[in-house]
Amino acid sequence: MAGSQEQEQTQKALGWAARDSSGLLSSFQFTRRANGDNDITMKILYCGICHSDLHMTTNEFGFSSYPIIPGHEIVGVVTQVGCKVNKFKVGDKAAVGCFIGSCGTCSSCKDDLENYCPKASTTYTFFEGQPKTYGGFSDIFVVNEHFAIQFPDSLSLEGGAPLLCAGITVYSPMKYFGLSEAGKHLGVVGLGGLGHLAVKFAKAFGMKVTVISTSPNKKHEAIERLGADSFLVSSDTKEMQAAMGTMDGIIDTVSAPHPLNPLVDLLRSQGKLILLGAPDVERPAELSIFPLIVGRKLIAGSAAGGIKETQEMIDFAGKHNITADVEVIPMDYVNTAMKRLAMGNIRYRFVIDIGNTLRA
Amino acid sequence: MAGSQEQEQTQKALGWAARDSSGLLSSFQFTRRANGDNDITMKILYCGICHSDLHMTTNEFGFSSYPIIPGHEIVGVVTQVGCKVNKFKVGDKAAVGCFIGSCGTCSSCKDDLENYCPKASTTYTFFEGQPKTYGGFSDIFVVNEHFAIQFPDSLSLEGGAPLLCAGITVYSPMKYFGLSEAGKHLGVVGLGGLGHLAVKFAKAFGMKVTVISTSPNKKHEAIERLGADSFLVSSDTKEMQAAMGTMDGIIDTVSAPHPLNPLVDLLRSQGKLILLGAPDVERPAELSIFPLIVGRKLIAGSAAGGIKETQEMIDFAGKHNITADVEVIPMDYVNTAMKRLAMGNIRYRFVIDIGNTLRA
Repeated sequence: MAGSQEQEQTQKALGWAARDSSGLLSSFQFTRRANGDNDITMKILYCGICHSDLHMTTNEFGFSSYPIIPGHEIVGVVTQVGCKVNKFKVGDKAAVGCFIGSCGTCSSCKDDLENYCPKASTTYTFFEGQPKTYGGFSDIFVVNEHFAIQFPDSLSLEGGAPLLCAGITVYSPMKYFGLSEAGKHLGVVGLGGLGHLAVKFAKAFGMKVTVISTSPNKKHEAIERLGADSFLVSSDTKEMQAAMGTMDGIIDTVSAPHPLNPLVDLLRSQGKLILLGAPDVERPAELSIFPLIVGRKLIAGSAAGGIKETQEMIDFAGKHNITADVEVIPMDYVNTAMKRLAMGNIRYRFVIDIGNTLRA
Repeated sequence: MAGSQEQEQTQKALGWAARDSSGLLSSFQFTRRANGDNDITMKILYCGICHSDLHMTTNEFGFSSYPIIPGHEIVGVVTQVGCKVNKFKVGDKAAVGCFIGSCGTCSSCKDDLENYCPKASTTYTFFEGQPKTYGGFSDIFVVNEHFAIQFPDSLSLEGGAPLLCAGITVYSPMKYFGLSEAGKHLGVVGLGGLGHLAVKFAKAFGMKVTVISTSPNKKHEAIERLGADSFLVSSDTKEMQAAMGTMDGIIDTVSAPHPLNPLVDLLRSQGKLILLGAPDVERPAELSIFPLIVGRKLIAGSAAGGIKETQEMIDFAGKHNITADVEVIPMDYVNTAMKRLAMGNIRYRFVIDIGNTLRA
């Protein structure tokens, strides 16, 4: 099932790559493998910018290996199919998220959780020691059809692109941890790329949603535009206290270090706090154990989702017309976009118009 | 459903109580309520000593209200039944664990989780602001039949007593978190009152069990006598490293502060670390978030269990002949036993022979 890196590299490709930890992206010519029997080749039309693209291009995790072409929120149109391909035909819309290969034999793979396979290949090299791969800030993509998603005709391509990472990253834990049932009360910490999609999915599930944010000025946005039911300013002790014990679960999308205990306090018994933001590896969080014990509460992490569930998520999004709020940008705006992303100056996701603006 | 405290206190009773934070226990005369329509009165035969009895008698949590008669691992024989009692008749064996009342109307109560009812009454006053109740270091007990457990005829009374707290405290999270399936690999941290019962239940479930302990000298005991499959010394980095990613779950029974990250590392993807030991409320644990995210791992707490599940647990114990390893002591040995408990000098549970040794 693994996307082989050993096949002949015969397809000429063009992307934008970072060459060093300045993170500055510029035009980069390279090759992709010939389209194999189980592969599709896509012409990329749009690619979302994920916060982790910024982490990787600027070597924030410390193991980036240059050049890096980032991008794992890829949508496009199929231009070639291998002789064993079943899911796609030329002209179909297709999408690729965070993973393009996995061992296919471990327990995670057997459970359709390729994202937790220890040998999973990320769409562009993400973890230390992985084989070199190039992401979606590029004109074409070659992928084993197993790792390609059928993109619903009803969904906007640009608005749907961020679902491939941000969307599945919030959808998967909501399903796995039982936080998708109508009537349940979900807290969403942080109103960014992930958070705003968590609100949209939760409302589509019929849940009551409270956005928890450090920024009081996001209240109007959260309630009036995204449809959240209520809003808590995390620094407002009185507001936080009044909401104690009211939530069935919390999707915490914030990666900057922040106190977890006040979030645990918001949960009712059996409540679940799900952490999605990858914080500084060196800085452990402080956690009070007693509240977990007396309320049988849990704290968990979750990373992206498997291919089967990504398809389920995007089909659900197609049915309920869930898309990200995006700012579509031309390729040559990407370095400015990265700077704005670092400052949090985007509501809520940049998507690059690759099809119309990527030129040599 | 609440065990009313307003009824007339007409039944003379004798117990051993602590009068101050020295924790020293001595004879204490008091009254229990008249046997109500839904009540049973029991002659207590045995009562286990739980570590929390020590915490409470010595005011370690800071809110003990004296006098305290501890004891919530109670077994005995029914001597009176109210006119509405269905589950018991005079002469039946009966048992009482940590809870004797709850609101009966909240979502926890409706889910048979009286232990998580915010208004639950503990068998002896355990939380701040609760009504005064007296525990099982005493000759008789009066309780609403809902909160009394039918004790299997096949089970030893003295060996079964600790199941009412220690037993259900390990059994409940194993069931709730899916850590009771044959073939799964369970780690058990700490080989004490709770830990040795976790090993016994896990083996009865057909699981592979690894005991994790700071004491290498518990290895023989764990494997040869309790039937654990393997043993890890938590300070042995090499051993711990070799076991990384191998466990489906860990039942952590240690209440003293200890590092959690190495335990998270022992878990495979989707693994679950369940904390049962109530640590110092003022000292938060340090927790790395990244490993939770990349492996969808979770950390949770759990406290005792509901009445329905306690009955299920003790019936299971009866069927599989699971009892605690106990040292049966006379009532007047209790202060020495408390000292030995504080030093961890007991394998694994003291049980007081109330029936034969409690005298005025």
